[in-house]
Amino acid sequence: MSGAPFARAETIAVGSELLALGRVDTNSGQIAARLATLGIDVVARSVVGDHAGHLELAVRTALQRADLVVLTGGLGPTDDDLTRQAVASALGRSMHEDAEQLARIEARFARRAIPMPAINRRQALLIEGALRLDNPNGTAPGQWIDLGAQAIALLPGPPREMGPMLEGLVEGPLATRVGRARTRSRGLKVAGRSESAVESTLQPLYAEWRAQDPPIDATILAALGRIELHLFVRGEDEASAVTALETAIGAAADALGPAVYTTRDESLEELAGRLLREAGWRVAVAESCTGGMLGARITDVPGSSAWLDGGLITYSNALKTALAGVPAALIAEHGAVSEPVARALAAGARARCGTEVGIGITGIAGPDGGTEAKPVGTVFIAIETPRLAACRQARFVGDRAVVRQQSVSAALDMLRLALTGLDPIGEAR
Amino acid sequence: MSGAPFARAETIAVGSELLALGRVDTNSGQIAARLATLGIDVVARSVVGDHAGHLELAVRTALQRADLVVLTGGLGPTDDDLTRQAVASALGRSMHEDAEQLARIEARFARRAIPMPAINRRQALLIEGALRLDNPNGTAPGQWIDLGAQAIALLPGPPREMGPMLEGLVEGPLATRVGRARTRSRGLKVAGRSESAVESTLQPLYAEWRAQDPPIDATILAALGRIELHLFVRGEDEASAVTALETAIGAAADALGPAVYTTRDESLEELAGRLLREAGWRVAVAESCTGGMLGARITDVPGSSAWLDGGLITYSNALKTALAGVPAALIAEHGAVSEPVARALAAGARARCGTEVGIGITGIAGPDGGTEAKPVGTVFIAIETPRLAACRQARFVGDRAVVRQQSVSAALDMLRLALTGLDPIGEAR
Repeated sequence: MSGAPFARAETIAVGSELLALGRVDTNSGQIAARLATLGIDVVARSVVGDHAGHLELAVRTALQRADLVVLTGGLGPTDDDLTRQAVASALGRSMHEDAEQLARIEARFARRAIPMPAINRRQALLIEGALRLDNPNGTAPGQWIDLGAQAIALLPGPPREMGPMLEGLVEGPLATRVGRARTRSRGLKVAGRSESAVESTLQPLYAEWRAQDPPIDATILAALGRIELHLFVRGEDEASAVTALETAIGAAADALGPAVYTTRDESLEELAGRLLREAGWRVAVAESCTGGMLGARITDVPGSSAWLDGGLITYSNALKTALAGVPAALIAEHGAVSEPVARALAAGARARCGTEVGIGITGIAGPDGGTEAKPVGTVFIAIETPRLAACRQARFVGDRAVVRQQSVSAALDMLRLALTGLDPIGEAR
Repeated sequence: MSGAPFARAETIAVGSELLALGRVDTNSGQIAARLATLGIDVVARSVVGDHAGHLELAVRTALQRADLVVLTGGLGPTDDDLTRQAVASALGRSMHEDAEQLARIEARFARRAIPMPAINRRQALLIEGALRLDNPNGTAPGQWIDLGAQAIALLPGPPREMGPMLEGLVEGPLATRVGRARTRSRGLKVAGRSESAVESTLQPLYAEWRAQDPPIDATILAALGRIELHLFVRGEDEASAVTALETAIGAAADALGPAVYTTRDESLEELAGRLLREAGWRVAVAESCTGGMLGARITDVPGSSAWLDGGLITYSNALKTALAGVPAALIAEHGAVSEPVARALAAGARARCGTEVGIGITGIAGPDGGTEAKPVGTVFIAIETPRLAACRQARFVGDRAVVRQQSVSAALDMLRLALTGLDPIGEAR
C-alpha cells in the first residue's frame, strides 16, 4: 500500500532517564537530519517520561501535527517500557504475540546460553496491523504502522540499535512514502568574522535566493572562531539543484572574500594540515596562554605527524627563555604579553624544532592578570615562515575558555592565510 | 492567590530554528534543573516550530500532563513570534495592550535614539489575567498566568534574557506554589573505572538507598575517563536530607575505594592543581600522541601558572631527543611507543623544565600506526616525582579522540594518586 508522500514528521523520545540531569537525546537530531534529506520536515520533537498516559497523549498530539511520527525508546522488556502499549492505546488497537519474533528472541538468548527471562516475551508483542522491523543489534524489534495518510514508526532507544534501523526504515517501508523531491545542501566556513558581519554581508543574497525557483534557504551556525553558512534547496531535479547550490555558494564566497576558508566539509585544522603538506612545510608551536591547545588541535587530525613536529609549552617566563630562547631582557622590557615576545616565540619554535613554520601565542586568558593597557582577552599571535613574519594583536571577548579557543582558531587562520599567499593579518585588520 | 504546590512541569521551547541543523535548546535543561531543586519534576519537554496551530496544540497537551507549563521563545515582535497568541487561543482568552509595558519599550528605544518600529507594539500585548514579568535584558516581557490548579509561564528565548527571568519567577509568583519539600543532591567522581564496574560495585547500596525513608535516588553519568554518581533525596527537613546524603556518599566512596577522586564539585585537573599547590610542587609535561592536550587541560584551570611551568610537545622522534633528551638509541631499541621512552619523557620534562614533577605520554592514537604487539589505543604514561617514578601501559578502546582524551585523564589520575600518597598505577592494575 502506498499513499501520498509525507511532508511533516514529529519525533518522540521516550524515557524518564532522558529528562534527567545531563542526559541528551541524540536520536531525534539524527532522525531529523536524515528525514530532511528526504524532504520531510520535523515540525516538533518531544521527550516524554515513562508514563502510559503521558505517552499516549504525546502520540495523539503528534498525529494532529504530523504525517509521520517516529518514537524512539521504551521497547525494552520491563514494566517501564510502555511505548508499544501507548501507541496501541492511542490508535485503539490491540497487540498480539508474534511467533516469529518470539523465536528470534529465544534464539538470541540460546546463542548466549542464557535462559530467556519471562519478561522478554513482551518484546514479541506487535501492534495490530504493524510491520515488524528487525533489529540486528538487540532484542527489541521496531514496528511500522501504516495508517494510510499517516504512519507511525517505533524504534529502539540505544543509538547503535536505532541508527541501522532508521536506515532500514528509509530504504524499506518509508521509501514508498517519500516524494521525488529531495533536500540537498552545500556549505562554506568563515574564520575571523562575527555572525552579524557575515549576516549583513549576505543579506542581499538572502533576498535573491528566496526569490529563486526553487528557493534556496540559508542557515547560519556560529561556533567559536567559526561561522558556517548552510544552503538548502528542495527539488526533484538533482542537476538543477546542484547547479543552483554551486552558484549560490560561489556568490557567497565572493561576497565574503578571503575570510571563507573552505567550501568543503573540512575543519580549519584539516585544511591547514593539507596546505602544509602541499607546501612541503612542517610546523612547530610555542604556546603560552593556550598551554598546548594549538598543538592539541593540530594533532586532532589523523596523520598530522606528516606536518607537525611538536612544540613548546612556555607557560612561565623562565621557560619562554629556557625552551624558546626568548631573551629575558625582551620580556622585562615589553612584558610577556607583547608583540616582540610573540614574534620571538614563533621564531624560537621554528629554530628549536627545526621546522619551516613557527607559531607563537602569548596572551591574557583571564580571569585575572588583565591591566588597563592589556585587558583580559589581549592575545598576541605571531607566525614565521621562510617567506614572512607577522604578528596580530587580538582582543577577544569572553571567558577564559573562549579567549583560549579563539586564540587557537585565529592562529590556525593566520597559518591558512600565510600558506595560501594571503596577508595573515589582513583579514583581522 | 495561592494554590496547592506544583509537582509536575512541562517545558515547550518555541522556534523553528531550534528544530534546524545543529541548534540546541539549552533553556529547557536549565529550567528542569532549577525546578528539580524545588521538588518539581519535568515530565515532558518539547520543541515546536513557529506554527500557530502546532503551538496551541502543544499548550493544550501540556496542560493535560503538567501543573506548570513553561514556554520559552516566540515573544519577539515579528509575524513568526506566535507564543502569546497560541497561549491565549489555547486558554480561550483575549489579549490587551499593556500601557506600562508599551511605555517601557518606547523608552528602551528612545535611550538608544532609535524610533520604535511599529511591530514592537506587539510585545506590549498581555494575555487576559496575566501578570507581566519584567525583562531587564530585552524588549520582550514574560507573562505568568495563574489558572488556579495550574499555571503557565512565558519566558523569552535568548538564554541571557531567560536566565534572570527564571530566577525572578522562582523568587516571585512561583514561590507561593512550591511545597516545603526540596530535592537536594550530592555527588562523587570516579576515575579509571568503567560505568558497569561502578554500577556493579554500587548495586547493593542502590537497594538500601531505595528502601530508606525518604528514599535516595541514584544516577550514574559516564563521561570520557570519568564516572559521576549523583544522589538525590526529596524531603522537607534539610538537616536529615543532608545527613542522609552525607552517609550515602560516604558508603559509596568506601565501596569504590581510591578510584573516587572527589566528593566535591571539582574537576580532576582542578583537584590535581590544588594538590600540587598544597605540596608546593610544580609540573611539566612531555607529550607525544596527545600533542599538547595534557598541558591544555591543566591550564584550563584559572591560576594554573602557580603549578604548571610548561612542557614539550614531542610528536616527532627527533624532538623526543632534541627537546626531552630521550636517547635516540632508546627509541631505536624499544620503539617510540614504549615504557622506557615514556619514562625518559617524564624525566626529560622534569629536567628540562626544572620542575618537581614530570609526566610523559607516548602512544598510538590511531587510526593508523597500530601493530599486533602494540595495537591502536596502546599508550604508555609515566610520572616522575621526587619520591617515585612509575609507568602505566594502557590499552584504550575507541577512536583517535577517545584514546587521546582517555590518555590525558589517566595521566591526571596518576598525578592525583601520586600526590595523595597512593600507588599511581595500583588502581589500573
